[in-house]
Amino acid sequence: MNTSTVAELLSQDASSQIIEVKGWVRTFRANRFIALNDGSTLNNIQCVVDFENFDETLLKRITTGAALHIKGELVESQGKGQKVEIVVSSLEVLGDSDPETYPIQPKKHSFEFLRENAHLRTRTNTFSAVMRIKSALSFAIHKYFTENGFYNMHTPMITGSDAEGAGEMFRITTLDAKNPPLDENGEVNFKEDFFGKEANLTVSGQLEAETYAMSLGKVYTFGPTFRAENSNTSRHLAEFWMVEPEVAFMDLAGNMDLAEDFMKSVIAYVLEHNKEDLNFLDQRLFDEEKTKPQTERSPMRLIEKLKFIADNNFKRVSYTEAIDILRNSKPNKKKKFKYLINEWGADLQSEHERFLVEKHFKCPVILFDYPANIKAFYMRLNDDEKTVRAMDVLFPGIGEIVGGSQREERLDVLKNKMAELDIPEEELWWYLDLRKYGTAVHSGFGLGFERLVMFATGMSNIRDVIPYPRTPQNAEF
Amino acid sequence: MNTSTVAELLSQDASSQIIEVKGWVRTFRANRFIALNDGSTLNNIQCVVDFENFDETLLKRITTGAALHIKGELVESQGKGQKVEIVVSSLEVLGDSDPETYPIQPKKHSFEFLRENAHLRTRTNTFSAVMRIKSALSFAIHKYFTENGFYNMHTPMITGSDAEGAGEMFRITTLDAKNPPLDENGEVNFKEDFFGKEANLTVSGQLEAETYAMSLGKVYTFGPTFRAENSNTSRHLAEFWMVEPEVAFMDLAGNMDLAEDFMKSVIAYVLEHNKEDLNFLDQRLFDEEKTKPQTERSPMRLIEKLKFIADNNFKRVSYTEAIDILRNSKPNKKKKFKYLINEWGADLQSEHERFLVEKHFKCPVILFDYPANIKAFYMRLNDDEKTVRAMDVLFPGIGEIVGGSQREERLDVLKNKMAELDIPEEELWWYLDLRKYGTAVHSGFGLGFERLVMFATGMSNIRDVIPYPRTPQNAEF
Repeated sequence: MNTSTVAELLSQDASSQIIEVKGWVRTFRANRFIALNDGSTLNNIQCVVDFENFDETLLKRITTGAALHIKGELVESQGKGQKVEIVVSSLEVLGDSDPETYPIQPKKHSFEFLRENAHLRTRTNTFSAVMRIKSALSFAIHKYFTENGFYNMHTPMITGSDAEGAGEMFRITTLDAKNPPLDENGEVNFKEDFFGKEANLTVSGQLEAETYAMSLGKVYTFGPTFRAENSNTSRHLAEFWMVEPEVAFMDLAGNMDLAEDFMKSVIAYVLEHNKEDLNFLDQRLFDEEKTKPQTERSPMRLIEKLKFIADNNFKRVSYTEAIDILRNSKPNKKKKFKYLINEWGADLQSEHERFLVEKHFKCPVILFDYPANIKAFYMRLNDDEKTVRAMDVLFPGIGEIVGGSQREERLDVLKNKMAELDIPEEELWWYLDLRKYGTAVHSGFGLGFERLVMFATGMSNIRDVIPYPRTPQNAEF
Repeated sequence: MNTSTVAELLSQDASSQIIEVKGWVRTFRANRFIALNDGSTLNNIQCVVDFENFDETLLKRITTGAALHIKGELVESQGKGQKVEIVVSSLEVLGDSDPETYPIQPKKHSFEFLRENAHLRTRTNTFSAVMRIKSALSFAIHKYFTENGFYNMHTPMITGSDAEGAGEMFRITTLDAKNPPLDENGEVNFKEDFFGKEANLTVSGQLEAETYAMSLGKVYTFGPTFRAENSNTSRHLAEFWMVEPEVAFMDLAGNMDLAEDFMKSVIAYVLEHNKEDLNFLDQRLFDEEKTKPQTERSPMRLIEKLKFIADNNFKRVSYTEAIDILRNSKPNKKKKFKYLINEWGADLQSEHERFLVEKHFKCPVILFDYPANIKAFYMRLNDDEKTVRAMDVLFPGIGEIVGGSQREERLDVLKNKMAELDIPEEELWWYLDLRKYGTAVHSGFGLGFERLVMFATGMSNIRDVIPYPRTPQNAEF
């Protein structure tokens, strides 16, 4: 006989067939009703035990977290909340779970506590729902790009370059930590290190992705990236996943179209495929927000917000327009912003982005054409020679979720910019080659995947949307 | 007017419509025929220039590698080999390519030369075909698992543990390389390092994947893994991608079923979706092998071999049977093996695996039930107390492509094994928790993704199936 999953059984009609299922006990009520879960769905299947026919010592072992193998008949449920249930004919305890020591009890645990037990936290409804949605988003991303003619590529994690410029890097090494070999000048001799030179963990696959876009046309990466920054916030990780599409012959307007279409598509995917998990998280967030003052609550519930994104156009606003709006805004005039906006050229802070998205436009916003001197070296300079063809997509509650640009395709302009910023040409000779041989307009962006998961699940701490978060002073599990 | 891709144009019928296309010149013959490629397909579109109507200086700029923007009429082709071609009405050079210096000329380049120009090598047929197939395999993997109820999970790259036991590790650090801080005993004080302890790059996500399998049921990882081993071979990388499914309530037999079904499915996917690229690589390999002595040629052509895998059952053979076969084999008796097989317990070498697959069974082989002392600590001990429920899938030409096992689910047996191997329980407390709370039979395997790509493309050096290979003394690009 084949074992069924809980998801399969719950989608079936009652029959007199004998079925088999394996899973973990969520609760055991009245010595009679087992709520069994196997991760295939948020929902448990109710297994009804006629306790008079079972050994008492066996029944005592049916505790939260225990693994069971159950056989029985799938019948119409007498109780509310489910169509079918199992009348148990045989029951085997595969693995016990001592109720005295098992950390995950059938009660509300704090997210802090669950982070310390991250290896067990997907045994709760909240975290299993988050991780199922995360998996669906991951598939939606691959599906979107595949269906739109993109090729997935694997850019390296280990880089011999530190010119990517997106942030602080981790060094990777096999040299002796205490007594590294020294060269004739008394400096560490990285020639003896594994890669024959100093090597770091990548902060972005973009530059390598550009090489493939300039031959395969449309490519994307989806992999880990790293930041050695000492940021202990609810939005930063030392290790996180990025999605980076890169497209030849596409300009900034096309890049904005792509980002918007892509974001809407993956959010529509989970709205369609993860209804139960989203309903659960929608209610969870609603209940959580009830405890907050009115002003801190979201104006929309989770699912409403996701539908709003999927169905409405993103507002496109130039940096210059945004500065005007901010300068004349109430919080700026009343000095409520921590960083007041006085003039063109200011770098926008999270408070400004959130004002634009949440108060002013009340929809996702794409800011574009930023001042050149607050953006990266590879961004396409506009004819005004002051701004670059950069864009950031800002989402309510999250702030920046996507950052991208049209890339500087002109060899001379790029070289000048690199010289200005002391980026050695020898390090990026291959990147410059793309501008020497068959250069063309091209663009791309980076999406912080965990931020998308936060947005789609309503979780407010990035540590709660990745299985084992890496942050300063923390690499547990 | 919208720009079309070459793939779109080649699938259309001739019409008098004016179309637009952008791409790179592969060749320009007789001052008249441009073969244009944009990466959307292996095939070029022929663009016919009536040279009398174009400026001579413009025509001189149509060189291999130049980026063009072409407008024209899509007409029935006069020549052979294509259904349609473009009669060019307007032509713009977006980016020149100096024929004196451009490394990728329309001639045969050695793979060694192309490795040094890895940023340009996907501008050749071979490497663009390889990378399109690689992308298709990646999607096939996500599709297979999603359709079969698996959840994708992201296991950490950075690990605070060095107990995974699959190989040498890279240390990652932000400490000063030359003068690291020392503690009171004069040892490096890793408490001051970024993560507050010594941290390494992962060699496998398996142990973490087990934690999710024991709550979500069926999970898989697909991400980078690292080995700091000084192996300069055509089959090893310091950074490579692994696919690691892990399934609760599945035993070794189920694991073998899963591995076989999975491998057949992803190979069938590329046979269906990548016909042109496979035809090209099939011919390439055939031509390459013609230069080899008969005995070194593959018995099957590439596509034939892929179809063979997709359509035939893998042979399942216990280690003990395999040893008997090998002991009595011709190469063993005639002392042709480098490592002769004398007794049960010997570790199998590549030469033995290839003999079994290529000479004896002539089909993929799954070896199982290996001696416990040549396998990892987490593998399920059989009742004979000599063998463990391990399995390796061996493919022709590649050798081991998948390695997996049923995991030891019994707390006491696992603890004894760890004690035997001096693996501290404190390091893997969370792994042991899985055996304390609701333990159950579970299994999984790891697939080296680049080895699968080698197999599917007929490439013989692993450096040629990853964009930017990382190997000892090499982290270029």
